[in-house]
Amino acid sequence: GRKVLIVYAHQEPKSLNGSLKSIAVEELSKQGCNVTVSDLYAMQFEPRATRNDIVGCLHNSEEFNYGVETWEAYKRGGLSRDLVEEQKKVQEADLLIFQFPLYWFSMPAIMKGWMDRVLVQGFAHEFPNCYDSGLLKDKLALFSFTTGGSREMYAKGGISGDIRYLLWPMQHGIMHFCGVKVLAPHICFAPEYVSEEKRKEMLTAWAQRLKTLWNEEPINCSPEWYFK
Amino acid sequence: GRKVLIVYAHQEPKSLNGSLKSIAVEELSKQGCNVTVSDLYAMQFEPRATRNDIVGCLHNSEEFNYGVETWEAYKRGGLSRDLVEEQKKVQEADLLIFQFPLYWFSMPAIMKGWMDRVLVQGFAHEFPNCYDSGLLKDKLALFSFTTGGSREMYAKGGISGDIRYLLWPMQHGIMHFCGVKVLAPHICFAPEYVSEEKRKEMLTAWAQRLKTLWNEEPINCSPEWYFK
Repeated sequence: GRKVLIVYAHQEPKSLNGSLKSIAVEELSKQGCNVTVSDLYAMQFEPRATRNDIVGCLHNSEEFNYGVETWEAYKRGGLSRDLVEEQKKVQEADLLIFQFPLYWFSMPAIMKGWMDRVLVQGFAHEFPNCYDSGLLKDKLALFSFTTGGSREMYAKGGISGDIRYLLWPMQHGIMHFCGVKVLAPHICFAPEYVSEEKRKEMLTAWAQRLKTLWNEEPINCSPEWYFK
Repeated sequence: GRKVLIVYAHQEPKSLNGSLKSIAVEELSKQGCNVTVSDLYAMQFEPRATRNDIVGCLHNSEEFNYGVETWEAYKRGGLSRDLVEEQKKVQEADLLIFQFPLYWFSMPAIMKGWMDRVLVQGFAHEFPNCYDSGLLKDKLALFSFTTGGSREMYAKGGISGDIRYLLWPMQHGIMHFCGVKVLAPHICFAPEYVSEEKRKEMLTAWAQRLKTLWNEEPINCSPEWYFK
């Protein structure tokens, strides 16, 4: 069975994000997948990149460099336990699903902290092993999120610009950089401003997509897809 | 004298980011500006958006909605003390400078948490008061950051794409949304891979720019600037 890691960032289990997460667990489990959830708020996941992420002595205690220190710590097995656990989940996964409400054209800080702290050099990338030769190649990622703004606001020419513009840092800058192939995003526009019936349709559409997810081809994660 | 708030996110005072921050404090103070620094790591600033941000009872305790709860709390003066303090600094400032190392095509999670938690509805925006009529209009913002990748990697057609692509969520999606006018970013490319002399030139260039900063015109914060 395939392995899936869902990295989930919502405070409220009853939210639409909570339901989207539960539906993914249910549907993928039904398919025989092994599904793990990192429920970041429930875990009180630490988003801050600090010296606490390194166990024991620093490589250079005169001048703290987070990138260098976590790289060195990774190599000697000296990263903090919460990071090691998340890296193990990532390592085992065939597919990473990120489920979150869009906050300020990006992911909530708690999820950004997961990216900042878990995807350390040596584990996820190590120059020149980035982009197509990133260390997490042969994995897939999918960004599934809800927005405050409407589909019209996020249309090309809309006041907030094409929604694809804001996917660039997350899909290309993070996932593609680590070698991960990216499936098309799953976006629920403005669920707070639609009827209960429409929200149910959003849940059904997600369940439906998941049924044939493994047949999907990744997007072409290059500027053309985002800015054409 | 004009008022400036520097929101600063680096763990190490001896870093280039630390020096860029100190130079800004020094140069702007010399000009007679009143400069305040929010040193996020030193403050152990909380990046997670949780129920703790609301003092007292919730508007809807059945289903927690962070956006609604902070909006309601703002209106009745019930936001947590750390948010009120940051909002006061923002309110008083004519210019916001964000100083940080680029983490994953964006700001470090600790700074993203500042955006997520401080710029609440009612304070920074309140539909339809967004973009050009955002509640923080008449303020300026400037993103000043260092990168790991080189200028060539961040050129149009470079492997990481035009650096302007990744500025869209931060400059347009956050600052412009709140009505803040955006000055051209200040970018130090790959300081870790250049000579000590080049790094000193980077500091001098920043000090030099600050001397005439108040004469600068904001950028045209529309898709053309980012994706043309």
